[in-house]
Amino acid sequence: MQGTRLDTARIRAARRVIDPVFLDTPLYRCEALEPGLGCAVSIKLETANPVRSFKGRGTEVVASALAASGARAVVCASAGNLGQALAWSGRGRGLDVTVVASRFATRAKLDRIRALDARLELVDGDHELARERAAAIARHEGIRLVEDSLDIETCEGAATIGLELADAVPSFDAVLIALGGGALATGVGHVLKALAPRTEVICVQPLGAPALTLSWRERRVITTDSADTIADGVAGRRPIPAVLDDLLLLADDAVLVQETSIIAAMRLLLNDAGLVVEPSAALGIAAILENRPRFAGRHVATIVCGSNVDIPAYRRWTAPAPTGER
Amino acid sequence: MQGTRLDTARIRAARRVIDPVFLDTPLYRCEALEPGLGCAVSIKLETANPVRSFKGRGTEVVASALAASGARAVVCASAGNLGQALAWSGRGRGLDVTVVASRFATRAKLDRIRALDARLELVDGDHELARERAAAIARHEGIRLVEDSLDIETCEGAATIGLELADAVPSFDAVLIALGGGALATGVGHVLKALAPRTEVICVQPLGAPALTLSWRERRVITTDSADTIADGVAGRRPIPAVLDDLLLLADDAVLVQETSIIAAMRLLLNDAGLVVEPSAALGIAAILENRPRFAGRHVATIVCGSNVDIPAYRRWTAPAPTGER
Repeated sequence: MQGTRLDTARIRAARRVIDPVFLDTPLYRCEALEPGLGCAVSIKLETANPVRSFKGRGTEVVASALAASGARAVVCASAGNLGQALAWSGRGRGLDVTVVASRFATRAKLDRIRALDARLELVDGDHELARERAAAIARHEGIRLVEDSLDIETCEGAATIGLELADAVPSFDAVLIALGGGALATGVGHVLKALAPRTEVICVQPLGAPALTLSWRERRVITTDSADTIADGVAGRRPIPAVLDDLLLLADDAVLVQETSIIAAMRLLLNDAGLVVEPSAALGIAAILENRPRFAGRHVATIVCGSNVDIPAYRRWTAPAPTGER
Repeated sequence: MQGTRLDTARIRAARRVIDPVFLDTPLYRCEALEPGLGCAVSIKLETANPVRSFKGRGTEVVASALAASGARAVVCASAGNLGQALAWSGRGRGLDVTVVASRFATRAKLDRIRALDARLELVDGDHELARERAAAIARHEGIRLVEDSLDIETCEGAATIGLELADAVPSFDAVLIALGGGALATGVGHVLKALAPRTEVICVQPLGAPALTLSWRERRVITTDSADTIADGVAGRRPIPAVLDDLLLLADDAVLVQETSIIAAMRLLLNDAGLVVEPSAALGIAAILENRPRFAGRHVATIVCGSNVDIPAYRRWTAPAPTGER
């Protein structure tokens, strides 16, 4: 796509350094979901891998380049999925991985980061504070800081999902993409605009963490004072200017959804598709639930981008609704 | 494998007629399960496809041959997964599909069969009565009867999973396979014996539906008067002699597991792997839970063969254990 930081040839090259366990993930039409949604729905499932999210695609690109350069250590801030993926990719290449996270992060994600032999440092604040602390560690120790969505490798890794979506024949009418830092949306968006230009690229963010969506709408960076959503994977407050610039060229729309819709979408995915998903991974279905007429009669794909949940919270979210809904 | 009904070249040919949506399914090591199991565990995930079980591999082979022969209709008996898969494969090829099932079958499976435009006939008895009724329909209407595990296409379709498992380097120390009619076990077993002969082929059946396991141990067909298990997908009572003959040549072991172990395995797969599985798909993990010393220090693969559950029952099975276990 003209003018973005992304390049399709580089994305194809990125595919070659990613462990195949993260590639060619299931993509299938899920008719059981359709009566509840009123449109044809295909699932791109990014959870059936060693780290249960799409983030391994990007960290494989980062870690392979680092290992090739002789680096020994790397640090990142993470809400949990990037850290887990970087820990996995780094461990396989002999890299010392440090992850900085909020102490309020999803416990299951923190447990997995530790289990993958990474050093985990918790900050008493939110993800933006973790970003600051990770940057300080990188400066102090003279090691590489991986910045999700800013570092082009994270976008290129995520973009390989786009290559797999663009192979679908006929092409999808729309692809729904969770919007957090923006790596997934800009990466996949770039490939779709390049290879399947008739597919609408729709980003979805929670109303409770709307900074990048608001920025996209206003065409300038807008930060928020707080983020309040169960979708921990996309709860940023300070959009990255370069990512916004790309998103302005690649996204056809950016929508905000309510927490109740995210929960309803998680329940639908469990009950009718047999899929455990984390809140961020339910954003696409939530967007359909909030605007069925927009999607009626169309074939929509949604990227189920992660499944790392704390089971007690997940049980609460997906418990039968009081109305008697399943 | 010498002397069985299976042939590796035919299995490779079968792969070419199966819709790719059923092939090359995720195969990944799931370290989060390992502390609870005491061995290295890889998951072969057969649930992320339009029918949420491995049965589509076999029905694709059946339906493509039928369509090529000019057939217009087909009938099968099913506990639910075969019927759903045959409905899917038949619909895509213009075949009229009739499925006979027990009226006690898992409701979600019956609902999906209907939703896929198949004619569903329920019998007031168990799966063995459904088999008799399906055979009668086939005779009366002069249409093809698909008999799971007896019809070689169903074994060859399932066997394509074996091709994907045999590609793993290094090879697995053991593969755990749910044992029902025997198509999955003989198909995958054949390929492993041919291509990864050092891998132990272990079949797992519920104690409450042990007919084929008892037959394997006694080396003669043993039927049971009843089957009593939540693992509806493997609840047969009358083993097929030709399938037993193959199994005797291919299985290294056949073990029986308790219902409580199946439930514990389903809970483990949900809590630690984020996977919704039906009881039959938890048999492999149940076998490890019942005999950790046997698998300690080894790398075991288990085929997660289906995820079609009735949600209320699934919620009961996977509710937190009274002991305070997650």
